[in-house]
Amino acid sequence: MTAPPFDLTLWTASHLKRVERALERWIPLTAPAGLAASMRYAVLDGGKRLRPLLVMGAREAVMGSQAESPTEQAMRDDAALRAACAVELIHAYSLVHDDMPCMDNDVLRRGKPTVHVQFGEAQALLAGDTLQALAFEILTPLNQDPAEPAMAPALQARLCQLLARASGHAGMAGGQAIDLASVGLSLTEDQLRHMHRLKTGALLHGSVMMGSACGPATATAQAALERYGEAIGLAFQVVDDVLDVTADSATLGKTAGKDAAHEKPTYVSLMGLERSQQYARDLLAQALAALDDSRLTHTHALRALAHMVVDRSH
Amino acid sequence: MTAPPFDLTLWTASHLKRVERALERWIPLTAPAGLAASMRYAVLDGGKRLRPLLVMGAREAVMGSQAESPTEQAMRDDAALRAACAVELIHAYSLVHDDMPCMDNDVLRRGKPTVHVQFGEAQALLAGDTLQALAFEILTPLNQDPAEPAMAPALQARLCQLLARASGHAGMAGGQAIDLASVGLSLTEDQLRHMHRLKTGALLHGSVMMGSACGPATATAQAALERYGEAIGLAFQVVDDVLDVTADSATLGKTAGKDAAHEKPTYVSLMGLERSQQYARDLLAQALAALDDSRLTHTHALRALAHMVVDRSH
Repeated sequence: MTAPPFDLTLWTASHLKRVERALERWIPLTAPAGLAASMRYAVLDGGKRLRPLLVMGAREAVMGSQAESPTEQAMRDDAALRAACAVELIHAYSLVHDDMPCMDNDVLRRGKPTVHVQFGEAQALLAGDTLQALAFEILTPLNQDPAEPAMAPALQARLCQLLARASGHAGMAGGQAIDLASVGLSLTEDQLRHMHRLKTGALLHGSVMMGSACGPATATAQAALERYGEAIGLAFQVVDDVLDVTADSATLGKTAGKDAAHEKPTYVSLMGLERSQQYARDLLAQALAALDDSRLTHTHALRALAHMVVDRSH
Repeated sequence: MTAPPFDLTLWTASHLKRVERALERWIPLTAPAGLAASMRYAVLDGGKRLRPLLVMGAREAVMGSQAESPTEQAMRDDAALRAACAVELIHAYSLVHDDMPCMDNDVLRRGKPTVHVQFGEAQALLAGDTLQALAFEILTPLNQDPAEPAMAPALQARLCQLLARASGHAGMAGGQAIDLASVGLSLTEDQLRHMHRLKTGALLHGSVMMGSACGPATATAQAALERYGEAIGLAFQVVDDVLDVTADSATLGKTAGKDAAHEKPTYVSLMGLERSQQYARDLLAQALAALDDSRLTHTHALRALAHMVVDRSH
């Protein structure tokens, strides 16, 4: 008897249900004066939720690797859910700020008006700032509800550590600064890769690391997942650049062709379309090889997510 | 023989030296593409550093309250220094974003051009975002340097918890949202107090709580310091409102009279100048009474800082 083939659609649906419900609960309805509305608008009901899925996939991969008591398992599942939501809040804040007139000046996101178009610039600025703080709130629960598993302080600290580094100067924000400074310049392949490793790669990689930090994981598994996260992080951006020239705005849910319009260096402008597509396939192969090396058995989700990143149409 | 009178100037100088040196070290020179320059410009060489001083004062107040081993003491001193710097980074990011054209559109801060005037709006937006992330990085050190005391993970988590809540939707950012929504409206005294309790009070209060979280502190002491922090937080804003009408721009180091120009409700516009000044003195008395109730003996610095907040001229 062989195992049934892994169904990513089913897996995604069940995990996203938990993530959406948690986001719904953790973005406070009581946030004052328009903040609740703008934060919810920025986060809820939209997006592929790739980062949360990577967190959940990584936690699932390491879950079976060592014995866990039911209490440990419940605590770690809760921690992974918190990590998944925190990462998505960081991603959402970066989109809100990135869309603002002083940055990309984008009016369309996920097929809806962007936050500053809908709520005004000042509110968009504040909503982004608050989403960032909320991510760290979610990672450091007050452990006051006896019905919920109390999250170990060391795990809280470790997740904050990973998230702050993935999103800060040596991660996402650093990459955005390089991006900003490189408009109209010609970059080498190495410089472009460095920019994207920070700008989009760091948070995707961070998602995998946060999921595996929820444990339990061996050093071998951690190192392999680290390589998986890096390959997926780069592949995502390569595919993004490809889609920017091959897809239309309706399929993308955002303005297509904007990189060329903004004179932004991309993989396609640098390597051409065909080599970029090949590079994406190479990175997929690296990610899958890393999973083979991990010696972990529950890697179906991460494997399928890697394929999804490279084969997506939007 | 009586103890020599407490000298706030000396105390401040010695503590600020440590804070400035730490900020200098922890704001990475290697942050990419203009980020280092704009972050350093926003933070270094300026500001009263009231929040870091409150952290250090609170740590000093609780320090002698229970026995500590030298190792514990070194770890907690390092933690307090990290907390002091983290709080200042959050404060600095809020000023950078607050000054932007879509918010207060201010061109002068601490006598210098504001960050967006100096570096452009996009860079100011990014610098603020990155300073927020850096605050949480500093609170979650990697503990890799054997020469530095390794910070207990539980303390890392607790400080992240306090900082995220003081700066997020139920703290500083929430207050800014209320502020934004209340321009041109008439608020009641209670509404104004609620706004300021969040907008400026939460981070000042949070500074005191972070200092006392570094421990060791009894429940009685914690509760008393909590009340001290609340009173000081409100007093600071009342005095700010008073100075906005009584001082000139040169003394303030920022544009005076801007609240009236922006039709912002203030304590002075609501209570009048004299009652506002009396209210500040009442809050000072409350803060000092809380210190008396704390049973702590090393409260000289917190006491002097409370006086400074109320008697300052800028």
